[in-house]
Amino acid sequence: MPTEPVIEKGLDRVVVDRSSISWVGGETGELVYRGFSIPELVPGVPYESVVHLLLRGEPPASDPSPEVTQALREHRSPPAGAEEVVDALSPRLPPLEALRTILSALGDGTYGYPPTLADGYRLIAQTPVLLARFVRRANGHAPVAPSASLSHAENYLTMITGRRPEPEVARALESYLVLLADHGMNASTFALRVAISTQSDLASAATAGLATLKGPLHGGAPSKVSDMLDAIGSPDRADAWIAERLARKEVLFGFGHRAYKTEDPRNLLLHALARKVARPDRLQLAEAVEARGLAALRAAKPTARLYTNVEFYGAVVLEAVGLPRELFTPTFAVARTAGWSAHALEQAADNRLIRPEMAYVGPAKGRRWPRPLPGR
Amino acid sequence: MPTEPVIEKGLDRVVVDRSSISWVGGETGELVYRGFSIPELVPGVPYESVVHLLLRGEPPASDPSPEVTQALREHRSPPAGAEEVVDALSPRLPPLEALRTILSALGDGTYGYPPTLADGYRLIAQTPVLLARFVRRANGHAPVAPSASLSHAENYLTMITGRRPEPEVARALESYLVLLADHGMNASTFALRVAISTQSDLASAATAGLATLKGPLHGGAPSKVSDMLDAIGSPDRADAWIAERLARKEVLFGFGHRAYKTEDPRNLLLHALARKVARPDRLQLAEAVEARGLAALRAAKPTARLYTNVEFYGAVVLEAVGLPRELFTPTFAVARTAGWSAHALEQAADNRLIRPEMAYVGPAKGRRWPRPLPGR
Repeated sequence: MPTEPVIEKGLDRVVVDRSSISWVGGETGELVYRGFSIPELVPGVPYESVVHLLLRGEPPASDPSPEVTQALREHRSPPAGAEEVVDALSPRLPPLEALRTILSALGDGTYGYPPTLADGYRLIAQTPVLLARFVRRANGHAPVAPSASLSHAENYLTMITGRRPEPEVARALESYLVLLADHGMNASTFALRVAISTQSDLASAATAGLATLKGPLHGGAPSKVSDMLDAIGSPDRADAWIAERLARKEVLFGFGHRAYKTEDPRNLLLHALARKVARPDRLQLAEAVEARGLAALRAAKPTARLYTNVEFYGAVVLEAVGLPRELFTPTFAVARTAGWSAHALEQAADNRLIRPEMAYVGPAKGRRWPRPLPGR
Repeated sequence: MPTEPVIEKGLDRVVVDRSSISWVGGETGELVYRGFSIPELVPGVPYESVVHLLLRGEPPASDPSPEVTQALREHRSPPAGAEEVVDALSPRLPPLEALRTILSALGDGTYGYPPTLADGYRLIAQTPVLLARFVRRANGHAPVAPSASLSHAENYLTMITGRRPEPEVARALESYLVLLADHGMNASTFALRVAISTQSDLASAATAGLATLKGPLHGGAPSKVSDMLDAIGSPDRADAWIAERLARKEVLFGFGHRAYKTEDPRNLLLHALARKVARPDRLQLAEAVEARGLAALRAAKPTARLYTNVEFYGAVVLEAVGLPRELFTPTFAVARTAGWSAHALEQAADNRLIRPEMAYVGPAKGRRWPRPLPGR
């Protein structure tokens, strides 16, 4: 057995592939979709147009993208059998657990390899329909069918809440979906690309993505920001709560990011959205917790470059548009189906099986089983 | 945006972590589980004892492992609600698509982080129970409950076929399960470790593993070996069929492996098992196809080190134990739940988020959206 080589644990500095989809500028606080910085897109560019940009490579000829609007309309009906699976899910299941099974149930044997643009549209269109069906049913309400006259963001909120959102609320949710649509080679996108690299299909790969997004180190923690704000309760209690928490060596939710060493550009735009749609007292509380949290963290570690991340004002915006916190991570996934689809198409266009090595450090070979074996 | 660095596409030479679980000797044709070469384990070591070895690190005090036997018995009842999901699956769904949803349905919110030994036992015990339930139902038969007096391999075959297997058949399937229980850092195990690295749970991570195993470049192709043998039909037709196939630049199923540059040690042991349990005419056909296929491939590429892989005699053995070919990859997954569980425990024991970089090669930043945006 070979001597131990360099271990790239975490793959931090390893560049796994080229990509034309998005660029994360961790030092400068930038996120760029195919050349467009996100402040160029938010607010104002419809989610359908961003789906067009991410999946097809260029902006559409008009907004919202006519091709994507049409394709999402055509593909909103889930495959035969998927609704039966959704209706069999226990209403007590956390929606994030349900969503993993929902994405898997989309895969009915008709998703193949290589993935197609139509596969991407199906995934993007059907995920919110089935998620909303589960949520409505779990709350004892009848499902709300999607409407051909509503945008993707309007449909999502309407299917979840049962009523058509105010325009400002729909625009805020749409901006959230745009900002969360892709983010370079994060862990869930990487898991999706690993799955596609074996020539697996998009429904399977998106399920792998969701299974990975679910972890609190990736997308599974934003609801904890809301829990934290509730626990603090008012701006004057922020300092004491934060000090106690840090004294117990516990983390502050929504602070810090592996990629960004400055402001997370998504969080800045979400903060601006929160100023428009959040309740004033909630916004004030969030801003106080951000300011006092950063002050406390920077006092403890003067050299650390710490900022709030996308989960911080993301939680405030998702609260303000009327989504319950158990839907925060599922809504992140609804947004990310765009990026996942784009990455699946890109991986398949120039594929190579992703299969790293590992260094075996277990017992040397040649051990003998401690007992005689039957039949020898 | 930075200039392009070294791209590790496929991660071929990248060592992602240390592992004590198994070692693949690609040059020498070895597979070692925690120091035990597989010819030391097969035939004879029960699957339960290999689960013990892989998950707990050392062989059990007696065979079959009393601890694992007891734990699998205790954990064979699926969580509330999972059977309802299985019964809602369309009977026309390919079993491999069904199994992805089944693994996801195991995750009911009670699998947490870090994964535990009990989580592993639950996954290993419940996967065949629910898979068999789906298969029985899809064929119009009542489910068969697992029996506390049968081994894991006997239970699997009994639950699938409805009758208790002959001892020699059960031993052959048990050896298959042992040989496929782990295989270093393959793509599905890597996807599972990526999922665990975000502090996701074992049910989610195993679902990501299955989504990745499903691809034909990994585990999704063994049934094609059986299809190929059927298409050839008799040894005397092997040369002509192979020549025609290679002339069309198509692959021969069950030949070649990314890791092994010599005989795949699992395939040698499966060949020995096939000699015991396969129909003589089927064995003769397989051996002729292997010999003529290797001769043709080596004539075309004299320097290539090509051999049949685990899928080749794996297919012959799985046919012989009475499994239909659409269950070949699901049975591979049933075996691999052991390795997946061991890798999840190992990843969590010294975790770091697995998140590589990528080189952005898309349009430069600073593009302007082609139209004015509403609300600006």
